[in-house]
Amino acid sequence: MIEYEEALEAVLSKSPALQTEAVELLAAGNRVLANSIVADRDYPPFERATMDGFALRAETFRPGIEYRVRGTVLAGRVWKGKIDSDCVEITTGAAVPEGANAVIRVEDSRSDGNGRVHFECHDVKAWQNVARRGEDARGGELLLEKGQLVDHAVISVLASVGVAQPEVYVRPRVSIISTGDEVIPVDETPGPVEIRNSNAPALLYMLSALGIQGSSVHVRDTPEQLEAAIATMLRTSDVLILTGGVSKGSRDLVGAALEQAGVRKVFHGVRMKPGKPVWFGRHDSEGVFVFGLPGNPYSVQATFRLLVEPLVRSFESLKPRPSLFLPLRGDRNRSSSGRADFFPARVWTGPEGTMIEGMQHNGSGDIRACLASTGLGRHPANRESLSDGELVEYFAW
Amino acid sequence: MIEYEEALEAVLSKSPALQTEAVELLAAGNRVLANSIVADRDYPPFERATMDGFALRAETFRPGIEYRVRGTVLAGRVWKGKIDSDCVEITTGAAVPEGANAVIRVEDSRSDGNGRVHFECHDVKAWQNVARRGEDARGGELLLEKGQLVDHAVISVLASVGVAQPEVYVRPRVSIISTGDEVIPVDETPGPVEIRNSNAPALLYMLSALGIQGSSVHVRDTPEQLEAAIATMLRTSDVLILTGGVSKGSRDLVGAALEQAGVRKVFHGVRMKPGKPVWFGRHDSEGVFVFGLPGNPYSVQATFRLLVEPLVRSFESLKPRPSLFLPLRGDRNRSSSGRADFFPARVWTGPEGTMIEGMQHNGSGDIRACLASTGLGRHPANRESLSDGELVEYFAW
Repeated sequence: MIEYEEALEAVLSKSPALQTEAVELLAAGNRVLANSIVADRDYPPFERATMDGFALRAETFRPGIEYRVRGTVLAGRVWKGKIDSDCVEITTGAAVPEGANAVIRVEDSRSDGNGRVHFECHDVKAWQNVARRGEDARGGELLLEKGQLVDHAVISVLASVGVAQPEVYVRPRVSIISTGDEVIPVDETPGPVEIRNSNAPALLYMLSALGIQGSSVHVRDTPEQLEAAIATMLRTSDVLILTGGVSKGSRDLVGAALEQAGVRKVFHGVRMKPGKPVWFGRHDSEGVFVFGLPGNPYSVQATFRLLVEPLVRSFESLKPRPSLFLPLRGDRNRSSSGRADFFPARVWTGPEGTMIEGMQHNGSGDIRACLASTGLGRHPANRESLSDGELVEYFAW
Repeated sequence: MIEYEEALEAVLSKSPALQTEAVELLAAGNRVLANSIVADRDYPPFERATMDGFALRAETFRPGIEYRVRGTVLAGRVWKGKIDSDCVEITTGAAVPEGANAVIRVEDSRSDGNGRVHFECHDVKAWQNVARRGEDARGGELLLEKGQLVDHAVISVLASVGVAQPEVYVRPRVSIISTGDEVIPVDETPGPVEIRNSNAPALLYMLSALGIQGSSVHVRDTPEQLEAAIATMLRTSDVLILTGGVSKGSRDLVGAALEQAGVRKVFHGVRMKPGKPVWFGRHDSEGVFVFGLPGNPYSVQATFRLLVEPLVRSFESLKPRPSLFLPLRGDRNRSSSGRADFFPARVWTGPEGTMIEGMQHNGSGDIRACLASTGLGRHPANRESLSDGELVEYFAW
């Protein structure tokens, strides 16, 4: 068995081939830029008034002087005159006309309504209330690097510089095979020793949160059905996830069926809790990455977050989401398992600041184990107990 | 002018009428349950083996005894026999048969291949490696409360208990009107004093991240166009957002046009930076909430997060997302603005744990102001400077 870090390294050791596509601007949200983006022109593109008021030449200002108002400069309109010892009314976002180099706020002015204005300030600095052309970015300057995740701020910049169809990385096709003769569909009534399939919906939703519409199928515990499903899914997937059937029982057919289908085993067994029986391999000629996850609900959700999600992100050139280190709220003891223990946890904010609080659950088969958790805390293998206030690693869901 | 907290309280003071609808299980992800959910039966529904191995009656165990193996109990199959002084092979997830009350792991067994097995352990405790019927939840027990946000853990529980079409709250219809004669569409080439519309795409994406497909329209700065667009949007929206045109200039027509359309002003002006000119009101007969946000990109994104998002969430009975309190990395000074300063910030993790780092920007008109930020930090109005390590309030994007 290997440690979690070794497992993660093995999962990420072979980078998938990156593919790109152009999408509409809004469809690029939460995706990753495949090109870097430069400014198409200076930003601001002109000397821009940042306040409503009057544009004038700062050097002409003396307290008490009356100014002639030459007209109004509106945002979006070119005003062709040149300012000398007079002034012009100006609106926020408009271009400061030639000759002018400052804006006095409308709040500091008194107009006579007849084309003349007094100012109630004592001095005027050159370029006050003016955003200078190019002060935010120069034309040709790099604004966004390739590999940048597109959030609202990136959408805003792409729109500003006119990138209506950004090039982004293609996301992987992900398929799920749930195994287990005891497992029935959600909308059927279980017999006394049957349970409904909760893992496929949980995984499909976790995939959808990564922007991926996965597909799923359930197969019964026979080598024939399993091998047939694996063969089909290998042809139409970049990542294949199986749940259940990876431990030591006589019906744990998954590892054997995968190797039969030409999937080369990279590891089976990780010194983590939950997740001890995780199986991982690759089908090299089809280029498919394959996970066998344990079948308990908490195990599936935790191992997806800790091992599958980082692989899925790598198809978009994204590194694993960084974990946080936050103080633990309360002590935490455990019966030593000799494995790193990933426990359901939630962010808690109080007078001491923001901390991580471990949550009670009843083991990895507890259908409620993850409920109300915001992520996973990590109890290192070599630590019997953790103390209140100690920094713990936290993986947000 | 009012403080941010007063503004938020005013925005949330009138709760929208909650409406509900039934959706497919996967479509319920990131939505809010409108019904509470109880367990349809006990969980586990039967005494369940948590390991592959052999089920037996613990009281019959003596080290060194040889057991007869009566057969194999597979997950999903009812095994009709009763265990007395013999044992039965059992797979993980299968129901422990009548008479048996413990499972010995397959790793601790030695089979002779002829229907007999020895165990290499020294004792057997009653119910070891068995999840007891009902130990996670009792039939009829409350599992999920109305108002619960549906994440992967909730999807998993809903699936387990057979809720294939949960009832959830309906999200609001949100429309955007961008104003400004200087503003042109993203796919057009701007003239020398024009800029592309970056606010509508940024807001539409922020809405989509809340699960809402908003609509947007741009109008020019004339009272007629503005009033016509407002009248149309009031009829088809639950929340209406205008950007630009809310400060003091002669072309800042938004407040007047809204009041003309029957929108009752609740406040205009908040002691926050950015966001000083925010306008908020309600059209009581149409039941529409209306925001006038300032037109600069950073202002729009920050005020959406701080004021609009909490209102949108309230349509789903959700409270505002809780802010965190994390240590500040480095000192932070500012030219005193007399207003709470919401600055772009990012989460930073180092040996000292997870902290919040303020980011440089060039004012609220800077097209890059939010880039690479993960949220907003808050510099309180009454504090000249903040010190390294001090807890600061942080609002994640």
